[in-house]
Amino acid sequence: MLSPLDALVVVLVRPRNPLNIGAAARAMSNFGIHRLRLVNPYAVAFREAHSAVGAARLLNTAEEFGSLAEAVVDCTLVIGTTAVGNRALYHPLRQLDSETGCTIRDQLKAGRVALLFGSEKIGLTNDDFSHCHWLLSIPTHAHHISMNLGQAVAVCLYEIACGKSRGEIGAAQLPSTTPDTASATAGEAEQITEALLEALHKSGYVKPGNDAVTEKKVRSLMLRLNLRAADAKVLLGMVRQIVWKLRRAAKEKD
Amino acid sequence: MLSPLDALVVVLVRPRNPLNIGAAARAMSNFGIHRLRLVNPYAVAFREAHSAVGAARLLNTAEEFGSLAEAVVDCTLVIGTTAVGNRALYHPLRQLDSETGCTIRDQLKAGRVALLFGSEKIGLTNDDFSHCHWLLSIPTHAHHISMNLGQAVAVCLYEIACGKSRGEIGAAQLPSTTPDTASATAGEAEQITEALLEALHKSGYVKPGNDAVTEKKVRSLMLRLNLRAADAKVLLGMVRQIVWKLRRAAKEKD
Repeated sequence: MLSPLDALVVVLVRPRNPLNIGAAARAMSNFGIHRLRLVNPYAVAFREAHSAVGAARLLNTAEEFGSLAEAVVDCTLVIGTTAVGNRALYHPLRQLDSETGCTIRDQLKAGRVALLFGSEKIGLTNDDFSHCHWLLSIPTHAHHISMNLGQAVAVCLYEIACGKSRGEIGAAQLPSTTPDTASATAGEAEQITEALLEALHKSGYVKPGNDAVTEKKVRSLMLRLNLRAADAKVLLGMVRQIVWKLRRAAKEKD
Repeated sequence: MLSPLDALVVVLVRPRNPLNIGAAARAMSNFGIHRLRLVNPYAVAFREAHSAVGAARLLNTAEEFGSLAEAVVDCTLVIGTTAVGNRALYHPLRQLDSETGCTIRDQLKAGRVALLFGSEKIGLTNDDFSHCHWLLSIPTHAHHISMNLGQAVAVCLYEIACGKSRGEIGAAQLPSTTPDTASATAGEAEQITEALLEALHKSGYVKPGNDAVTEKKVRSLMLRLNLRAADAKVLLGMVRQIVWKLRRAAKEKD
């Protein structure tokens, strides 16, 4: 029988230290989580990391991706972890606690959830954030907010895997998700982003030199919409029809 | 002002790897806990451990003891951590969870509490257990119960330092609302609906006789998106630019 935790995907984005990758794998194994994905890992020798005590098989089956978009394409919820600090954030931010643990466990019943951890030095970038539905922060002490990667993974997975359900902590249980309200995957949202970007280019919305900024803006907007799978399909159809018309108009003009 | 967490003492019993001692110190610092005691540490060079990122002062003030009895002499509650496994235990055993976190926080108001972690190889011995009031186990997966020392310290301190008090458990979580997350009004959503409908008409998406159906479809889609006010403004700007381009293309064709 599949556990909802099988739908949890840990994504390490540009990790540098094989020891930390191994430590993350060990913590995953400790809490019964098996899907590890790496985006552009710095060291290629991570699969032999000694720190992955008891988790060698998990490291061996870890998947590598060239971009974050590819690594989360099948996920319906993408959560970026951050120490916050002094950065201005334009994403919804939640603290790790028992309620947030419940929310994530509820989402795991509906689809794959990606939990992103950035590199040891700088964490996740604003570009990485643009792929996230919301951000998660561990409530560390104000004077020392930055956690070791392996320890941050352990703490997050402990809360997600071991936390009590809403019923057990006294709050009302959320209704289970029905097929009609299934969430769109990050890949489906990305298809709309791409089509909308083409429409915005063709209509002159994107000013020269502003491509990268607009791309991030559109991608984050699409994720904030928390589209249902069915709505994503409808919206993609609409935007693609508009793109088709804009292309034809451009051709006719030539 | 002293926080109850000042009464928490982390005791590492016969730790072998300076990296793990440093990692434990870093996790302590992350969660605002400052009293580290070591019983017969194997390596004397632990005070320079590179893994104690941001916690060098904590390592420098760590106290060393020749016996566990001396290390816990001033504590009113002594808790031994264990992975359990196949050992027969004659002590009360509790799982780490929000209730146990509450219990420990309550005790911290009354006196010092020692949290013991054994050596990396064999954990705490039965002799060590004899100094404990009760034992604590992290609810890891049955197939892989043994955690890395630094990660086990991080998970325990997270639950103790960040857990909610009994009164707070089950209370509704307030999302961290900023002015940016204000919801769009129905009127703002309707402006987008109107602009999008015009774009859909001009691009041939709306089939003859299908106006009313499409209009309802687009309007309910916009409302389901639960747009924020700021996002509604951005989306309206995008769609209006596309409409402007489609109008111009139609004019040029005439």
